[in-house]
Amino acid sequence: MAQSGNETPVPKRYTYTPESLLAVAVEVFNERGYDGTSMEHLSRAAGISKSSIYHHVRGKEELLHRAVSRALDGLFGILEEPGAHRGRAVERLEYVTRRTAEVLMTDLPYVTLLLRVRGNTDTERWAMGRRREFDQRVTDLLEAAAGEGDLRADVDLRLATRLLFGMINSMVEWYRPEAGGASAVEQVADVVVRLAFDGLRK
Amino acid sequence: MAQSGNETPVPKRYTYTPESLLAVAVEVFNERGYDGTSMEHLSRAAGISKSSIYHHVRGKEELLHRAVSRALDGLFGILEEPGAHRGRAVERLEYVTRRTAEVLMTDLPYVTLLLRVRGNTDTERWAMGRRREFDQRVTDLLEAAAGEGDLRADVDLRLATRLLFGMINSMVEWYRPEAGGASAVEQVADVVVRLAFDGLRK
Repeated sequence: MAQSGNETPVPKRYTYTPESLLAVAVEVFNERGYDGTSMEHLSRAAGISKSSIYHHVRGKEELLHRAVSRALDGLFGILEEPGAHRGRAVERLEYVTRRTAEVLMTDLPYVTLLLRVRGNTDTERWAMGRRREFDQRVTDLLEAAAGEGDLRADVDLRLATRLLFGMINSMVEWYRPEAGGASAVEQVADVVVRLAFDGLRK
Repeated sequence: MAQSGNETPVPKRYTYTPESLLAVAVEVFNERGYDGTSMEHLSRAAGISKSSIYHHVRGKEELLHRAVSRALDGLFGILEEPGAHRGRAVERLEYVTRRTAEVLMTDLPYVTLLLRVRGNTDTERWAMGRRREFDQRVTDLLEAAAGEGDLRADVDLRLATRLLFGMINSMVEWYRPEAGGASAVEQVADVVVRLAFDGLRK
């Protein structure tokens, strides 16, 4: 518990791969905040020495970069899928909304970290810039759908985009994966889409 | 800038009232986090000595209690307003949604603080309990509206409540008071209500 000191040998639980080390790092970043996480914290959480970590990565910023890249690849990947290019803009928008909610749930810790970065390092500023790009792509879709006459004309689109993302992104605060797996994810994404496009009222 | 030390005299900018001290404290809590704020930080931000602060309050937890009480009084006050008791449940629900968004905007720093408390002290746990009570009152309204047949039957109401609050609460992340004052607040609240009840689609 109070294990500390630079080179204290820590029990080697199992062999770490870059992937499993990343999963542990993301967990610690989300719990303590990126700024509040030291290599010592990562070493203790992973149960491997700091020098073993340095064998895999140059430092904690590289772990942050890999983690937010995974979330961003998931999000930008949506925009390359056929559903994001097929049909009227409102259908493409609905597709992207549904898939954004799904990616958030399936890559929950990575997207949580992405949404919490605050811009103190180059990696954080880069991640925030990429997030804004993604948001802009969705705003473009909203504008296209409004231009095709499929969205209500009485709401400000920038405001609507913020509220839409506000609703989706809030899921990192309360969504917890449970039994049900892929079908549960699909059901939740379905409610998100229905609320966003058709509202609560019958 | 580097002013520190326990009893360093700090410039007395003007006379503090409990109300203006509270406003400064809430600002500092939101910026540094409640856990990360010391009486020294509060003293420096307010420009008065720690002993002057202790003249007003017993300590930082009392300031937190007063601040979250203000947010909670605003929210629970909505439930006492005539609009929350008049008409069908779906109309009362719409009224409470609109007013919740308005209270969030008019009491922004206080509601922001309320939404960020995490339960490390008695005051934080009490505030979280009161928040859950408020959420439950809204869930009750959703259930009543569903019972009266006015809400879509194909969405889970607990999930819908979370997404609804997710959308509203996200405003603390991006809403910034601008020129326009009360009318701007009303317009934003209007969009929140339209999206929540009628959705984006025309």
